[in-house]
Amino acid sequence: MDLFFLGTGAGVPAKLRNVTSIALKLLEERGEVWLFDCGEATQHQILHTGIRPRRIEKVFITHLHGDHLYGLPGLLASRSFQGGTSKVTVYGPKGLKEYLRVTLDVCKTYLKYPLEVVEIEEGKVFEDGQFTVEARLLEHGIPSYGYRIMEKDRPGTLLADKLKEAGVKPGPIYKKIKDGEEVVLDNGQILNPADFLGPAQKGRTVAILGDTRQCENAGLLAADADLLVHEATFAGGEEHLAHEYYHSTTIQAASTAKEAGAAKLCLTHISSRYDRNDWKTLEQEAMTVFSETIMAEDFMEIHVPFKGDKEE
Amino acid sequence: MDLFFLGTGAGVPAKLRNVTSIALKLLEERGEVWLFDCGEATQHQILHTGIRPRRIEKVFITHLHGDHLYGLPGLLASRSFQGGTSKVTVYGPKGLKEYLRVTLDVCKTYLKYPLEVVEIEEGKVFEDGQFTVEARLLEHGIPSYGYRIMEKDRPGTLLADKLKEAGVKPGPIYKKIKDGEEVVLDNGQILNPADFLGPAQKGRTVAILGDTRQCENAGLLAADADLLVHEATFAGGEEHLAHEYYHSTTIQAASTAKEAGAAKLCLTHISSRYDRNDWKTLEQEAMTVFSETIMAEDFMEIHVPFKGDKEE
Ligand SMILES: [Zn+2]
Ligand SMILES: [Zn+2]
Repeated sequence: MDLFFLGTGAGVPAKLRNVTSIALKLLEERGEVWLFDCGEATQHQILHTGIRPRRIEKVFITHLHGDHLYGLPGLLASRSFQGGTSKVTVYGPKGLKEYLRVTLDVCKTYLKYPLEVVEIEEGKVFEDGQFTVEARLLEHGIPSYGYRIMEKDRPGTLLADKLKEAGVKPGPIYKKIKDGEEVVLDNGQILNPADFLGPAQKGRTVAILGDTRQCENAGLLAADADLLVHEATFAGGEEHLAHEYYHSTTIQAASTAKEAGAAKLCLTHISSRYDRNDWKTLEQEAMTVFSETIMAEDFMEIHVPFKGDKEE
Repeated sequence: MDLFFLGTGAGVPAKLRNVTSIALKLLEERGEVWLFDCGEATQHQILHTGIRPRRIEKVFITHLHGDHLYGLPGLLASRSFQGGTSKVTVYGPKGLKEYLRVTLDVCKTYLKYPLEVVEIEEGKVFEDGQFTVEARLLEHGIPSYGYRIMEKDRPGTLLADKLKEAGVKPGPIYKKIKDGEEVVLDNGQILNPADFLGPAQKGRTVAILGDTRQCENAGLLAADADLLVHEATFAGGEEHLAHEYYHSTTIQAASTAKEAGAAKLCLTHISSRYDRNDWKTLEQEAMTVFSETIMAEDFMEIHVPFKGDKEE
């Protein structure tokens, strides 16, 4: 599980930071990439990476501002042009369906794969055997969601040697134990799966938030997360500006991460008023509140390790 | 009058050629830039040029395929964000109004300048004292227009010395002569403006075509033009493919330029199937038919000189 930042700027594209898009690479986990937001020229950024558009099977839009959305029709069209055939599901606020219908219809774009558009509300927006994704509304000028991506715990590895010692030969019973089922042997002996499995691996949690003022729901989404991705459009001290434009400062993002008990904070959506020389200062002021802070840059990748694993 | 190529590729963005956009720089003539098509990331390309978005006052869309259109909402939004206040007029095929209405409304983009959208038909789409723009339908899968931009002839410079010799003192009469009006002096003498003006300067004509098969209207638009910009999606020999996908080959573009009596041909909309090593070959095969051919590249600028002026 890795997060790859395709665009980390705010509002308008700049030379060093494109508008927002973040790829959650779940290649080992499920051979897929999930995209969070898709500002204009996201597909252009992807050209300079190893990400293959056909791997993108889910797109989560936080809110419908153009700098988070205008790259979506082009990305979907190019994915089809380049031979993508697997289904894509796009999640986002109400209005997304009309936007995609018109942008694809007016241009007579026919996708060679099924496209599902899900207009979300707060709550669970996706769940399967591996992951749950929940959404909560943040505080922005228009409905803006944060997403909490929760990996389910993985059962421990099967202790085959221990089963053999107990006189159980390899076969269907092994699979049942691995799946956590209790097994009754022909001789009446009961096998408790907990006795034959290593420690379960706790799933990871990542919170990726849309544009927002500092707010309670941001904290709930980030609670105990392994990684929180939070906007920091403004520098500390600009709380008044941040409030006026429905954004956050570095300090506010850091205090949300701290109060929520997140393990790590990544700042993004950096205004172009700050140039390359300011970035370190912005990062450091956030670190005074929450030491495990890093500022995103375009083309930066962050690995999200399992708890207990060494970070790369 | 200069043509600046912001994107010269076909269908999907590639590393070396972005999707279509061409800027007609009329800075000396009227302090404006006119854009022809606006594929995704046109505003990103502009970041690397001296073009100021606030100077863009007209946008002509040839057809509504995404690779010619998807950069328009972002460009318009950023122009507003960056303080552009003068009116913008966008011309293009039917469907453009709905596209812009939805893409700007869904994203709650409020432009700080007036935006006029003109859905065009064949014929004259714009005229003022300096320029006339005419459109004709080409042959593509959907309605695709070519534009013929005609600069009006400029009257010759006033020969003030000659007027003084004739005993006419500087004053309102000079202005009338300059404007080509006949003047009757108090003494009954008639001044023919032609006698007091240098040679008129012939206006220039540029034809910029949307995607098309080789067709009659392409030739009419290009008739005696100083410069024809024509798509060449495919190499010579691929006429069958070009026909199937409603595009042209290098050879077809060159023969249109030749038959139309154009002074110069610029090939663009080059498929990404051709890499950097192929470009010279494509250009040269067109030159066997029409020697004054040049292949466009991203960030290339072409000056359009007055007839009789030396080319730069
Ligand atoms: Zn926003
Ligand atoms: Zn086309």
